[in-house]
Amino acid sequence: MSTDWLIVPVAYLGVVAGAVSGVMEARRKKMDVVGACVIGLITALGGGTVRDVLLGRMPVFWVLEPSYAWWAFLVALVTFYSTGLLVLTSRSILVPDALGLGVFSIVGASYGIQMQDSLLIAALMGVITGVFGGILRDVLCAQIPVVFARSTQLYATCSFVGAWVYLILLRWNVMASVATLIGIFVVVVMRLMAVRLNWRLPDPED
Amino acid sequence: MSTDWLIVPVAYLGVVAGAVSGVMEARRKKMDVVGACVIGLITALGGGTVRDVLLGRMPVFWVLEPSYAWWAFLVALVTFYSTGLLVLTSRSILVPDALGLGVFSIVGASYGIQMQDSLLIAALMGVITGVFGGILRDVLCAQIPVVFARSTQLYATCSFVGAWVYLILLRWNVMASVATLIGIFVVVVMRLMAVRLNWRLPDPED
Amino acid sequence: MSTDWLIVPVAYLGVVAGAVSGVMEARRKKMDVVGACVIGLITALGGGTVRDVLLGRMPVFWVLEPSYAWWAFLVALVTFYSTGLLVLTSRSILVPDALGLGVFSIVGASYGIQMQDSLLIAALMGVITGVFGGILRDVLCAQIPVVFARSTQLYATCSFVGAWVYLILLRWNVMASVATLIGIFVVVVMRLMAVRLNWRLPDPED
Repeated sequence: MSTDWLIVPVAYLGVVAGAVSGVMEARRKKMDVVGACVIGLITALGGGTVRDVLLGRMPVFWVLEPSYAWWAFLVALVTFYSTGLLVLTSRSILVPDALGLGVFSIVGASYGIQMQDSLLIAALMGVITGVFGGILRDVLCAQIPVVFARSTQLYATCSFVGAWVYLILLRWNVMASVATLIGIFVVVVMRLMAVRLNWRLPDPED
Repeated sequence: MSTDWLIVPVAYLGVVAGAVSGVMEARRKKMDVVGACVIGLITALGGGTVRDVLLGRMPVFWVLEPSYAWWAFLVALVTFYSTGLLVLTSRSILVPDALGLGVFSIVGASYGIQMQDSLLIAALMGVITGVFGGILRDVLCAQIPVVFARSTQLYATCSFVGAWVYLILLRWNVMASVATLIGIFVVVVMRLMAVRLNWRLPDPED
Repeated sequence: MSTDWLIVPVAYLGVVAGAVSGVMEARRKKMDVVGACVIGLITALGGGTVRDVLLGRMPVFWVLEPSYAWWAFLVALVTFYSTGLLVLTSRSILVPDALGLGVFSIVGASYGIQMQDSLLIAALMGVITGVFGGILRDVLCAQIPVVFARSTQLYATCSFVGAWVYLILLRWNVMASVATLIGIFVVVVMRLMAVRLNWRLPDPED
C-alpha cells in the first residue's frame, strides 16, 4: 500500500510553509521581492536539496519535478505582496510547518536508508531534510540559525526522534506505509506539544 | 554557428570581475591574503559551482577546466597586493561585472534547459549561475547578500529577465547562437541602465 | 606500502578535534545540544564533504563510512555535557587540530590529483578538505571565518604549502607513502611553529 496519496499533498504543504517562513524573514531584513523569492525558494527546497547532494541523487528533486519550485516561487511572490493585507505570524504557519517537518523528516530518512544501511546516517538525512531549509534561510539572513538557539522549543529533536521511530519500526519489519504514518505522526505531535508546553533541551549550565 | 569565440572570453572577464569584487569585500573586512584569495575564488566560481552541483554535472566546471581557477587565483592575488597602487571602486568593475552577469546567466540557462524541459528551472539555473557567487561572498563576510537589499538596483532581475528572453527565443526556434547573443545583450543593457537610472523593484510598503 | 595504518587513526583524531572545536564555538553562541551536535558534525566532516561534492564522489565519505559520523556525533555530545567538568581551550585542541589539518590536506590533495592532473586544483582540494569544516562552523555561527582574519596565525597557508610539497614529490616519482608522510609532516610542523612563533601573512597595509 503506497502512502503517496497522503505524503505528496503534505509535502506541498511543507513547501508552502517553508516559502512563507522564508518571505517573512526576508521582509524583516528589508529585502526586496527578489531576495524574498530566493529566500523563500531556499527555505522551502533547501533541506531536500542538501540531502540529495549528500546522497548523490542528482539532478536534485526540484529539477526533476519542477512543480515544487513553481509552488514555492508563486507562494513567495504572493506572500511578499500581500503582507499589507494578510498579517502573517510564526503562529499562523505553525501547523503547516509541523506537518512539513514530519513529512520531510520521514521522506529524508527513507532515502537515507535506501542508500546506506546505517540508522544514524538515515536519521541524519531525515533531520537534514527537515531542518536545513530553515538553517540556510538564517545563514542568508546573516543570523545564527533559530533552530540552534536554547530559547527555541524542540524542533530538530522532533525530526530526529520521529526518524528513529520510523527506522526502528522498519527494522522490526513493520509495513513501510504504517511506519511512515507513525513516524510522521510522532514528529508532528511532538513538535506541536513542544510549542504548546514550551519544551526545551536540558542545558548543562541550568 | 558556435558563439564560443565570444562567450569564452567574456566568461573569463566575468571571472575577473568576480575575483576583484571578492577581494575588495575581503579587504573591507580586514582579511589576510588567504581569506582574500578564497573569497575571490568563491565569488568568481561559486555561481557555476552551485549550478553544476544542483544539475549533477560533476566534477564541477573548474575542476575539469583548471584555467578558470588559475585566472581567479592570480587576479585575486594581484588585486590584493595592488590595492595601494590601484584605487578600485565598485564603479570600476561595473562593466566587466555586467558582462559576466550576462554570460553566466545565459550559459546557466542553457545548461538548465539541456537537463530539464522546464523554463522556470532553466531560468533559475541562469540566475543561480549569475548571482550565487556574490551571495556566497556576502555569506562568508557575515553580511546579508547585497543583491537582496531594497537599496540595490536591479541585478538578479536582469539575469532572470535575460534568461527568459533567451529561453523563449529558443522555444520559438530562433537559432541558439542568435538567442544567446540577444539574451546576453538584454542582461547587460538592463543592468547598466538599472545602475544609471537607479531602477529598483516596487515595494509593497512604498 | 600503504600508509593507511597511520592515516586512518590520525584522520579520526582530526574528526575529534573538529567536533570539539565546533561544540566550543556553539557553546560560546549559547546554542542548545542539537545546535552543538550539528555544528560539531559539520566542523568535523564539512571539509571532506565539500571536496567530495566538488569532485563528484557521491554519496559523500561519511555516508559510505558511517563510523566518522558516529565518532563526531558522540564526541560532540560528550563535549557538550562535560563542559562544566572539563575546561576546553583552543590550546588544548591545538595538536590534534594540527594533525587533522595535515591528514585532511594531504588526503584531499590525493583525491584531487586522482581526478584531475592539475596541481592547483589538487592543492585547492587539499585546502578545502583541511579548512572548510571550520569555515562552515563560522558561517553557521554568523561570524567571519577565523581562518580569514589577519590576526590569525598561518593556517590555510600550512595546508596549501604541505599539499604542494606532497604533489611535487609525487611528480618527482617519490613513493606515494613517503610523499604522504612528508606532506603531513610539513603541514603539522608549519602549523605548530606558526602558532608558537606567531607567524602571520604579510599585509600590504603594514
